[in-house]
Amino acid sequence: MIFTSRPLIAVTMGDPAGVGPEVALKALAVCYKSSRSRYCLIGDYPYLSRLSKKLHLRLPLVRLTAGGQNGKLGPVVVWDMGGAQGVSMGKISANAGAAAVMYISAGSKMALEGKAAALVTAPIQKESIHKAGCPFPGHTELLAYLSHTKSFAMMMVGGPFKIVLQSIHMSLREALGQVTVPKIMEHLELTQKSMRYWFKIKNPRIAVAGLNPHAGENGAFGKEEIKILKPAIEKARQKGWDVTGPHPPDTLFYWVSKGKYDAVLCMYHDQGLIPFKLTSFDTGVNMTLGLPFIRTSPDHGTAFDIAGKGKANPSSMISAIRLAEKLAART
Amino acid sequence: MIFTSRPLIAVTMGDPAGVGPEVALKALAVCYKSSRSRYCLIGDYPYLSRLSKKLHLRLPLVRLTAGGQNGKLGPVVVWDMGGAQGVSMGKISANAGAAAVMYISAGSKMALEGKAAALVTAPIQKESIHKAGCPFPGHTELLAYLSHTKSFAMMMVGGPFKIVLQSIHMSLREALGQVTVPKIMEHLELTQKSMRYWFKIKNPRIAVAGLNPHAGENGAFGKEEIKILKPAIEKARQKGWDVTGPHPPDTLFYWVSKGKYDAVLCMYHDQGLIPFKLTSFDTGVNMTLGLPFIRTSPDHGTAFDIAGKGKANPSSMISAIRLAEKLAART
Repeated sequence: MIFTSRPLIAVTMGDPAGVGPEVALKALAVCYKSSRSRYCLIGDYPYLSRLSKKLHLRLPLVRLTAGGQNGKLGPVVVWDMGGAQGVSMGKISANAGAAAVMYISAGSKMALEGKAAALVTAPIQKESIHKAGCPFPGHTELLAYLSHTKSFAMMMVGGPFKIVLQSIHMSLREALGQVTVPKIMEHLELTQKSMRYWFKIKNPRIAVAGLNPHAGENGAFGKEEIKILKPAIEKARQKGWDVTGPHPPDTLFYWVSKGKYDAVLCMYHDQGLIPFKLTSFDTGVNMTLGLPFIRTSPDHGTAFDIAGKGKANPSSMISAIRLAEKLAART
Repeated sequence: MIFTSRPLIAVTMGDPAGVGPEVALKALAVCYKSSRSRYCLIGDYPYLSRLSKKLHLRLPLVRLTAGGQNGKLGPVVVWDMGGAQGVSMGKISANAGAAAVMYISAGSKMALEGKAAALVTAPIQKESIHKAGCPFPGHTELLAYLSHTKSFAMMMVGGPFKIVLQSIHMSLREALGQVTVPKIMEHLELTQKSMRYWFKIKNPRIAVAGLNPHAGENGAFGKEEIKILKPAIEKARQKGWDVTGPHPPDTLFYWVSKGKYDAVLCMYHDQGLIPFKLTSFDTGVNMTLGLPFIRTSPDHGTAFDIAGKGKANPSSMISAIRLAEKLAART
């Protein structure tokens, strides 16, 4: 039906009340011209069609419903699941959340069944999906649930950085408790496998950041490096992986920016995201490691403050689609 | 004696076993040609004289002892306190530590007595000063002690950033305990005063970084923003200071790099130093706020691995001297 020899990239439009549909359409309008991929945009056709016209995009959208299709297949088909009727721009609502979850479930199913070569997701609003009864804090956890994935992690890809986060949506105090040998080993294994399988780097140079200033300065500023990080790194090295550290966090990202390492395991959210957003503010991509399929997304949120105004920057969404295509082409 | 109408900058040579004397000499060889300042390099004259020749520097050094001076006063006088005899390059020793502390004490005294317009310090080795019986973790605390300063903080100055750290030499877990309303108020006051007094910015725009990911996301990822940061910021604003936040840490430094804020108060060492070193690796300057005099230093250490090899990069020391001169000229 919608499958041809050219890889199909599934793209969810995200929360209808946010900038997701706008960045998805703007990005596809750029990507479809230069790419060998085909796209299936999952969302609400009347909403997307109206928005595309309003944005003056020259994007041929072809409507597809669960029962079949209308018209000829263009490079961008819209899987019309509805769900955006009556949604107010920039507002939290159960309706918008339920629609966003529905699109993700459909996209995940396409990827799991091999019908899509990769899944790219536009932003959702946590409060809205909670109102709709979905208990997860974000895409990553929801996709892990839908694909029965136990071991997963977020990787930020942009500029010189491939950054894996030991923990994400929790307080810094809680994040300290996530720094354990098994958790580090789990993330190193996810990183090692993903770098080899998706990025085709045979022996990835993985740097582990310290947790404390100066990586603990031999125990003077915290013992986690001695008690947890070094044993975990030693264990990883015994598997033959090129894992080094714990590196002093303050200088590590400079060296990564100079090409010294292929990927970095960070001990908490902001340790990785501060240098990442400083250098890849508009173009960073969020990728989920551990899923049985390729999944990328822009690294921004629904931006309710500018939703519906036509001002959203699609750069990060374009990067997310291009990375998904690149990885899909390699596998 | 050594005072003229041109501002005198006191420069300590740092630990004789490290790269301090080398970067001090290399930096002065650059600075003395283009500057209106005069310099008093505090250290060991025979050592510095030998090193200057070895480095082929065209730097006229004039020896000065406690008792008087030999020869004419050039733009760079060396206050010869000895102390470097028998010190092995790249080695920790009580001798080297004691010498380093002696130079700092002398420099601090010059600045306190108004004989020097500013103090620039080359790096010291913590283990060596500890062996020599000096209990402090670094320059900042030692200078605070010598000048009877109770309220002080470190500011990193480089590129677009002026970053003040809520805590420095302690574990991340301990640093969490430093995030209190009184401590934040103390740092905001130091920042506000220093930005006005030293940097001559009348109403500095001071951004306070959150502690937790997304600045706590309304309490979902930690309560410190609601319980501590917001009340402190409110208190500061009531004083008429242009203090904003708590800002999501991951995007804040991007906005600072775009010129949106004049200074940032960071909640822990690496929150500030990761973006700082990523952008100002070789040229960052460390400045102490709260002292009764101007004090700057390069933001690197003694680099024992390359000490005595002539390979040390003086860029950060040059920046430290130039910042000290700039601030001294304004006061």
